[in-house]
Amino acid sequence: MNQEFTEPGERIDDLLTNNLKIIQSREVFSFSMDAVLLARFASIPPQGRIMDLCTGNGVVPLLMSTRTRAAIEGVEIQERLASMARRSVALNQLEERITIREQDLKEMPLAGEHGSYDAVTVNPPYAQITGSDIKLNIHQAMARHEIGCTLEDVIRTASQLLRTGGKLAMVHRPHRLVDILSLMRTYGVEPKRVRYVHPRAHMEANMVLVEGLRAGKPELRILPPLIVYNENNEYVPEIMDIYYGQKESL
Amino acid sequence: MNQEFTEPGERIDDLLTNNLKIIQSREVFSFSMDAVLLARFASIPPQGRIMDLCTGNGVVPLLMSTRTRAAIEGVEIQERLASMARRSVALNQLEERITIREQDLKEMPLAGEHGSYDAVTVNPPYAQITGSDIKLNIHQAMARHEIGCTLEDVIRTASQLLRTGGKLAMVHRPHRLVDILSLMRTYGVEPKRVRYVHPRAHMEANMVLVEGLRAGKPELRILPPLIVYNENNEYVPEIMDIYYGQKESL
Repeated sequence: MNQEFTEPGERIDDLLTNNLKIIQSREVFSFSMDAVLLARFASIPPQGRIMDLCTGNGVVPLLMSTRTRAAIEGVEIQERLASMARRSVALNQLEERITIREQDLKEMPLAGEHGSYDAVTVNPPYAQITGSDIKLNIHQAMARHEIGCTLEDVIRTASQLLRTGGKLAMVHRPHRLVDILSLMRTYGVEPKRVRYVHPRAHMEANMVLVEGLRAGKPELRILPPLIVYNENNEYVPEIMDIYYGQKESL
Repeated sequence: MNQEFTEPGERIDDLLTNNLKIIQSREVFSFSMDAVLLARFASIPPQGRIMDLCTGNGVVPLLMSTRTRAAIEGVEIQERLASMARRSVALNQLEERITIREQDLKEMPLAGEHGSYDAVTVNPPYAQITGSDIKLNIHQAMARHEIGCTLEDVIRTASQLLRTGGKLAMVHRPHRLVDILSLMRTYGVEPKRVRYVHPRAHMEANMVLVEGLRAGKPELRILPPLIVYNENNEYVPEIMDIYYGQKESL
């Protein structure tokens, strides 16, 4: 019945939260647990302005819209993904709350946007570009590899967008943690909260959530670990809550 | 029967590992779990040279001596603590394996010592000096506050002592993590392994173990969290093993 919103190869998935739907495509972009955890981890203001960089198909703005009355913007450099995100916003009748911008974050902030956001979220491409071939189509490659922007581009732009006291929340891979923390400090976003995600209790972390405060003073907290699966290969209760419940934050 | 080794106010405790004994004093210095975890976490070489900075009463060299045939040195700036450490070494008849040096790490390395150590360990004073009074005697104050050396002094000296490929292992408080990782990178010791210690599964980390590689390439691993107590307020099996067992490493 929602065929008017989709293009060939796309499907509509249920976000399992407040009846939200999202347009996805196996060939182009599907969201992962990383985005879901980021949307819950971020300390988002009850009102004001929030920017989601590298928004992809808009999953983070959609999920955050259930927790705030703030105006949310999502920025995506790829036309095809920005289109999917915009159509998902329309499908959920959230046009007045969420705006999708097709733009290169390296050219942001635009005039008048410096220091005007209360929060910035980002699930950036994780992989640094190496000499090896990337065996993905351009949509997948740009979402996963630092082709359109580097980690430094992301943190610099986020810092410039944030007001003093505004917060940047990011999800990334732990192996880049030293870069993330150093770059945040370099650009005046002091890391304040870190949470690691471990697939199982005895395994290394495969995901890290980091939040920094624009112009904050140094004092980092390491939150309790988030263990995804218990010994019986079942999601732990907290993951069940995040996916299927209405809990407020991580 | 070991009264010849102790001075007034001192006692001899059992390290519960290989029949090791250690001289302690409530007024001067007693080791904590931090030192025990550091001695197990550190990747120590089977032979070569190991330096333990801020060695206090020598607990880390004593514990490491059970895991290596390397020559171990401990450096302590306070005469009283260096004396306790030296007497503990003698008490355990480890004079040929462990040397205690009474020295200021800020004046190290001495001539000929640059790049000559395979591993450096350190459990430094945690607290930065603030305007507030420190209500401790000088021994306790120096062990806990950055009076005799700062975090930067420790990391700079460790880096200069290490050979290329040598490892620095440190235990500290998580709130200083950004400083630790940034300073290690600044001084050419790339952070490679981090492990957090949480008192309980649902609590924030109150201790962090970090190991860096001299002239290593960036690639950080976050090890499984170490949870100290289970739901029944008992030590978890891994802590029991560390304190009472002979397991090789964390």
